[in-house]
Amino acid sequence: MFRRWRARTRQLRSNKSFEWFTISVIVLSSMSVGVKSYDMAPLIVSILKILDWLVTLYFLAELVVRFLAAGSWRSFFSKGWNIFDFLIVTASLIPVDESEYALLARLLRLFRMMRLIYFVPQLRLLVNALLLAVPRMAYVALMMFVIFYIYGAAGNLFFADVNEYLWGNVGRSMLTLFRVSTFEDWTDVMYETMEIYPLSWTYYLSFIFLSAFVFLNMMIGVIINVLQEEHDRDIVNAREKERLQLLSQLTEVDKRLQGIEAALHNKIPPP
Amino acid sequence: MFRRWRARTRQLRSNKSFEWFTISVIVLSSMSVGVKSYDMAPLIVSILKILDWLVTLYFLAELVVRFLAAGSWRSFFSKGWNIFDFLIVTASLIPVDESEYALLARLLRLFRMMRLIYFVPQLRLLVNALLLAVPRMAYVALMMFVIFYIYGAAGNLFFADVNEYLWGNVGRSMLTLFRVSTFEDWTDVMYETMEIYPLSWTYYLSFIFLSAFVFLNMMIGVIINVLQEEHDRDIVNAREKERLQLLSQLTEVDKRLQGIEAALHNKIPPP
Amino acid sequence: MFRRWRARTRQLRSNKSFEWFTISVIVLSSMSVGVKSYDMAPLIVSILKILDWLVTLYFLAELVVRFLAAGSWRSFFSKGWNIFDFLIVTASLIPVDESEYALLARLLRLFRMMRLIYFVPQLRLLVNALLLAVPRMAYVALMMFVIFYIYGAAGNLFFADVNEYLWGNVGRSMLTLFRVSTFEDWTDVMYETMEIYPLSWTYYLSFIFLSAFVFLNMMIGVIINVLQEEHDRDIVNAREKERLQLLSQLTEVDKRLQGIEAALHNKIPPP
Amino acid sequence: MFRRWRARTRQLRSNKSFEWFTISVIVLSSMSVGVKSYDMAPLIVSILKILDWLVTLYFLAELVVRFLAAGSWRSFFSKGWNIFDFLIVTASLIPVDESEYALLARLLRLFRMMRLIYFVPQLRLLVNALLLAVPRMAYVALMMFVIFYIYGAAGNLFFADVNEYLWGNVGRSMLTLFRVSTFEDWTDVMYETMEIYPLSWTYYLSFIFLSAFVFLNMMIGVIINVLQEEHDRDIVNAREKERLQLLSQLTEVDKRLQGIEAALHNKIPPP
Repeated sequence: MFRRWRARTRQLRSNKSFEWFTISVIVLSSMSVGVKSYDMAPLIVSILKILDWLVTLYFLAELVVRFLAAGSWRSFFSKGWNIFDFLIVTASLIPVDESEYALLARLLRLFRMMRLIYFVPQLRLLVNALLLAVPRMAYVALMMFVIFYIYGAAGNLFFADVNEYLWGNVGRSMLTLFRVSTFEDWTDVMYETMEIYPLSWTYYLSFIFLSAFVFLNMMIGVIINVLQEEHDRDIVNAREKERLQLLSQLTEVDKRLQGIEAALHNKIPPP
Repeated sequence: MFRRWRARTRQLRSNKSFEWFTISVIVLSSMSVGVKSYDMAPLIVSILKILDWLVTLYFLAELVVRFLAAGSWRSFFSKGWNIFDFLIVTASLIPVDESEYALLARLLRLFRMMRLIYFVPQLRLLVNALLLAVPRMAYVALMMFVIFYIYGAAGNLFFADVNEYLWGNVGRSMLTLFRVSTFEDWTDVMYETMEIYPLSWTYYLSFIFLSAFVFLNMMIGVIINVLQEEHDRDIVNAREKERLQLLSQLTEVDKRLQGIEAALHNKIPPP
Repeated sequence: MFRRWRARTRQLRSNKSFEWFTISVIVLSSMSVGVKSYDMAPLIVSILKILDWLVTLYFLAELVVRFLAAGSWRSFFSKGWNIFDFLIVTASLIPVDESEYALLARLLRLFRMMRLIYFVPQLRLLVNALLLAVPRMAYVALMMFVIFYIYGAAGNLFFADVNEYLWGNVGRSMLTLFRVSTFEDWTDVMYETMEIYPLSWTYYLSFIFLSAFVFLNMMIGVIINVLQEEHDRDIVNAREKERLQLLSQLTEVDKRLQGIEAALHNKIPPP
Repeated sequence: MFRRWRARTRQLRSNKSFEWFTISVIVLSSMSVGVKSYDMAPLIVSILKILDWLVTLYFLAELVVRFLAAGSWRSFFSKGWNIFDFLIVTASLIPVDESEYALLARLLRLFRMMRLIYFVPQLRLLVNALLLAVPRMAYVALMMFVIFYIYGAAGNLFFADVNEYLWGNVGRSMLTLFRVSTFEDWTDVMYETMEIYPLSWTYYLSFIFLSAFVFLNMMIGVIINVLQEEHDRDIVNAREKERLQLLSQLTEVDKRLQGIEAALHNKIPPP
């Protein structure tokens, strides 16, 4: 019976207009609280609040149905996404009072926004894709860390006396280098050290080229990897089909030839 | 008869030198008004004005011919581009007086510039391509919105006391975060909050990495999607042709073999 | 005879060590003049000057040989690159006096640097590739111009009173918009207009998204175009070869079958 | 015997948990020294120091085993990576005293960080890939140099009087142009020269477009090159296999036909 209810909630969820209605309710209700500059009419705010509660109640009902359909605690909480969903929905149920504008109330409102990830399957796919891309990036991140650390330590070593705030310790230096790698007022940093070390532009330019080079190579590597995977999956299938068709044709020709051979052996009398 | 006229206007339009003449007339006439620093000779301005009017009249004639060829109001205005063209051409006909330098006159001049989109088919293709890419981006935009909203709310929560102008409400905070994501003086924003929250660099760096990561994944996804579509369309066609040729060869071999079989059956007498 | 000389100069040119020697002479001699901060020893400067002259003389000799091999003025100057080479080499021959540090002398030195493009074939290939990419970009550039012009005119219309320097006329406005599109202190521009028009952030954000969107689509389009061309050229060749081999095999099978048919007709007596 | 030891060290190295343990020891030990703001408990620092020494001793042992397995000095030091490893490990053995906070001690600590490149094979692959990409970039770098030099010389020629610090000599001008190409406060540079040369925006815009254009073309070229190589390697193999299978089928059909021909010649008696 739970499974029938589950099928119904799924059917409702896959409805396109229901999807966009729910998304807009969540977005608008969070916007109506967040962006104070737009004072909406009290009526609209009240309607939005009610719709927001209805959406959360629907989510709760769906989760309960899903939980009952799963059978046991274990089988339900064995999936990471179910734990995520449970946290989001239960956190959304805690009443947030507007008057006592406290830290906790606002942190809860953040959780409410994440109901979008609960609801929209494409967002889940995106989050999954991002999580899958993490290990692929791990070694390049390590490489980047080595570059940043070595330049950071060298920067701290030479420029600490020039500007304590920017190069005071290795951590500070690495933050400054990250700033340089985003090109954020990096010439101000450079001109300052060039007063004392006129050749320090070599430090900045070599760092910029090296980090950009590693970053670009990483990007190209990722693009190629993903392209290769996609390509292998789709095209190999198409080619396999095509090859099998040709092979079956050739096999048929072969069979016919065997028939001819048999005919020649049987029908033609030995001289 | 309207269709013959339409064919003629189309023929004129596909003429390369006519295309570049019309483009340069539109661009120059709008430039001559817009960029005041270059005072052109009155004669050239007058010539440009007349050419501009001739171009608009040609557009009007073409539109009328197209409208008459369509037959009815409905069939003409059922296409989005025809409505767009009608608005552009009629708006271009409203006389813009140079002396009364008013808001309306200048807004009309903006419309005159859009005659380029009316005239150049490649610009239409570009606009179409952009419109097609919008739905593909919708879910990633939603994901981005969730990230911006959560970081924006957290930023508003912690940093509102540090700088009211930048973090005053969630809207302001999201605008500041967009600024940070474009690397525009983001260290100024960060250094300010680091005075009170020394660990707030984690907030900025995690935001930059997360938003850049989602953006890059989106970019790669879009490139792969488009590549896949192009590839499927072009290459599958080429392969199909090739396969059919081979199959027809095999079929001919097959036929010949059938002939041999028939010959063996008919011509060789039973022993 | 000129052709033999030409073959010899070509042979010398294709020598890798000669190539790197010539490149370093040109680069060092131009560097020695340009970057004054590094005062080289007079001896090295003199040696570089002599080497620089030798290189130019070699270029002159090569050009003369090439000209004589061409036969007539017309056939030589019909190629764009030959005109370019002639201008570069003759301009390099004009003596540049160091003492009278004039504008003309320095402009001539710029020409001397372009001897690199004269000498290195890969640079010519790059220039050719860039020239080929220009028409492909023309329509996107036109689209970008339309966006910039419309936003520029609107910016001029609304913000001219806020900051005359940035929004004084359409030209100024478009320059400011280009600045915004490079994210260069764009928030300073925005915060200024937001004082009077609080909603003007919509203007900047819509412009940034629109221009970035068109730019990205253009980039993707170019990548796909180039990939497609490369792919078509290389892979189609490989596939063609492969297909022809299979077809020739099938044709041979066909011939053999004809032989069998003939044998059946001739050798088997009618019953 | 050395080879057996070597196999054991290799086995240990390929252990995933050993890898991550070693990486975290190296990173944490270098972090504990570099980032002073986080004062760790003395116990943790001591444990990290001991673990750091154990890791270095393991590296030393591994290197000694590898050296003994190589047989002679020559065969060991003929590989670039072995020289790199030898330098890293021996430099890590020099005791760094914390109290005498000297330049040499800190430079040695930089070397200690590079033990990561010694240890993690993926980082070596990345470094190899980067070194391989260098020659591919050489000619584009030369092209970029020509553009920067010509614009730098022209900038020095015209703008030296406007701002001696930015345009004082060709070297300074090229540094300023690199700053412009990173969009770092480039409008400040432009507005300054526009005071005297109102049309100097053409200089900056043409430079930005030209350098961005060359850079983008280079990027696209590199992506296509790498894609092509990958594609050729993987796909050609798959296609070769497929083609060979088809050819072998055709050859078998051929053989069968020869058999039939032979049967026709031998078995059918002449009339």
